[in-house]
Amino acid sequence: MSQSSDLNEFELISRFFSRPGTQHAESGVILGIGDDAALLDVPQGNVLVAAVDTIVSGRHFPEGSEARSIGHRALAVNLSDMAAMGATPKWATLALTLPEADASWLAGFSAGLLNLADAHGVALVGGDTTRGPLTVSVQILGYVPKGAALRRGGARAGDLLAVSGTLGDAGAGLALRTATAPPGRHAAELIRRFDYPTPRVQLGITARGIATAAMDLSDGLTGDLPKLAQASGVAAHVAVERLPLSQALQETASAEQAREWALSAGDDYELLFAVPPQRVAALQSAAARLNLTLTIIGELRSGRGVTWSLNGDDFTPSASGYDHFGRASTRITV
Amino acid sequence: MSQSSDLNEFELISRFFSRPGTQHAESGVILGIGDDAALLDVPQGNVLVAAVDTIVSGRHFPEGSEARSIGHRALAVNLSDMAAMGATPKWATLALTLPEADASWLAGFSAGLLNLADAHGVALVGGDTTRGPLTVSVQILGYVPKGAALRRGGARAGDLLAVSGTLGDAGAGLALRTATAPPGRHAAELIRRFDYPTPRVQLGITARGIATAAMDLSDGLTGDLPKLAQASGVAAHVAVERLPLSQALQETASAEQAREWALSAGDDYELLFAVPPQRVAALQSAAARLNLTLTIIGELRSGRGVTWSLNGDDFTPSASGYDHFGRASTRITV
Repeated sequence: MSQSSDLNEFELISRFFSRPGTQHAESGVILGIGDDAALLDVPQGNVLVAAVDTIVSGRHFPEGSEARSIGHRALAVNLSDMAAMGATPKWATLALTLPEADASWLAGFSAGLLNLADAHGVALVGGDTTRGPLTVSVQILGYVPKGAALRRGGARAGDLLAVSGTLGDAGAGLALRTATAPPGRHAAELIRRFDYPTPRVQLGITARGIATAAMDLSDGLTGDLPKLAQASGVAAHVAVERLPLSQALQETASAEQAREWALSAGDDYELLFAVPPQRVAALQSAAARLNLTLTIIGELRSGRGVTWSLNGDDFTPSASGYDHFGRASTRITV
Repeated sequence: MSQSSDLNEFELISRFFSRPGTQHAESGVILGIGDDAALLDVPQGNVLVAAVDTIVSGRHFPEGSEARSIGHRALAVNLSDMAAMGATPKWATLALTLPEADASWLAGFSAGLLNLADAHGVALVGGDTTRGPLTVSVQILGYVPKGAALRRGGARAGDLLAVSGTLGDAGAGLALRTATAPPGRHAAELIRRFDYPTPRVQLGITARGIATAAMDLSDGLTGDLPKLAQASGVAAHVAVERLPLSQALQETASAEQAREWALSAGDDYELLFAVPPQRVAALQSAAARLNLTLTIIGELRSGRGVTWSLNGDDFTPSASGYDHFGRASTRITV
């Protein structure tokens, strides 16, 4: 074998991503890392669910972010896509481009990614590492019983709009991380919401058969709600004063600033549901069992478009809030 | 909706990757681009096959390469992984990072990728686009009947080693493209082998039940054969004079240079098979029906390691040949 030292260096990297025990019986992994492709078992009666999301240094996270956080977030944003479909995530592949093979960076990155994978029973079944500017692309695979997936297009006029958890914390956390907001006693907690988002996988699974539509708030409520309304062919209205804000956020930011982050920041990875009024209690109980709040923020109506109100008055969300991190990323949606 | 002009620009990109008609009944696509994830149907009796490969500008292709070629190669290297497993490719997701949204570049890139996808009945079911240095990561998904996948580890001592097509053409093509080799009358043909490799998907499918092991030569014979031998727990021997060289390569390069490219260049994307002697004729007929040659280049023996001979004498492949493009990429294989 004739290999450059570069290649050997990068082969070393592979060791950070292999863990004994990830290939157990319930994993559905027939053949994992080490061949031209992985062989995976999708149980009968289920359909395969697949998504990909890339995070790039300086776009989706500040340059110099903690390696462990980058590894965690790269998987978390993909797990959140599974959650939004009501799917059970099972397998992931990783395409990692990085400028150099730094052992301590790689140890942190792989720990962040693999700890979250373990927590969700997800096996890393393939990938490649390439030298270049830091880019992390994770492909997530899972499954959902036939006919049970939560789509964006299933909502009906009369359904209520609900969100999990609290909104705006990660937006505040990012501002604190990049020092565009003054620190306070809740800084560490809010920064943690940005660095280590918790994908709502179990909530998504539980919402099957209850919610009529779901999506994750990866682009913020003002960016994402219009997509759900459009896909379902309905209009949406949100009472902005109902947006769930954490104590930490309220004690850190002005009411206006907190509202802006809750409306437009895209890093909370909470779930947005459409749910018929008679099933709201069921979804709220399900959320409570997971120690999550579920808040009704508005409703779907016949018609088109999204309207907002604040304490009964018409309200127009700020256009500047959305892209506060200079992000230029979108899914292929057209 | 509050979106930056950057985002609108990148949403425009999405249009290059949506084509009417890619979502037809046989595609197995229940839900394609446009939701949080795609929903896909793996037919009963099959297992899911998944792989990912990334190509980076200046690493896997020269900077300034034709956009159409980059799109073609990004999918081709992944289709080749399916071919190596004997799998039928069905779906792909794309993670595209690019420095700017140039309409003419995108038109070429998407045409290269989607034309090859159409030729193989592969549907693009998701992806994302992100601003940053040019990096193209494709995840390929397909399936294979249970128990029928061609693995690297199935070869046995006594099996013969066979390769499809001719070797070294793409290595010569790359050298011609980057002007490290003098042009000749076959330059266009050889460059085409680098720019537009043909994944041997049908040959891989046909080889199910005939070959005992297979892999694609993405890292060149000297890089890849040891992996097959090791995975199967056998030794390998190659008679280097048997390596199939095209007329174009023989008329372009010295015998030594041609041999080096055939041994170590990694861009031909031909298939390497282990096949029991009594089944060689069956595999050769199958290849002939696809207008492909299949050449016996050596054999597997009991023991460990790879040995090489040239016209009966021991031979040591050059160590310098492997990384002629300064590539530093590897699959996660440990």
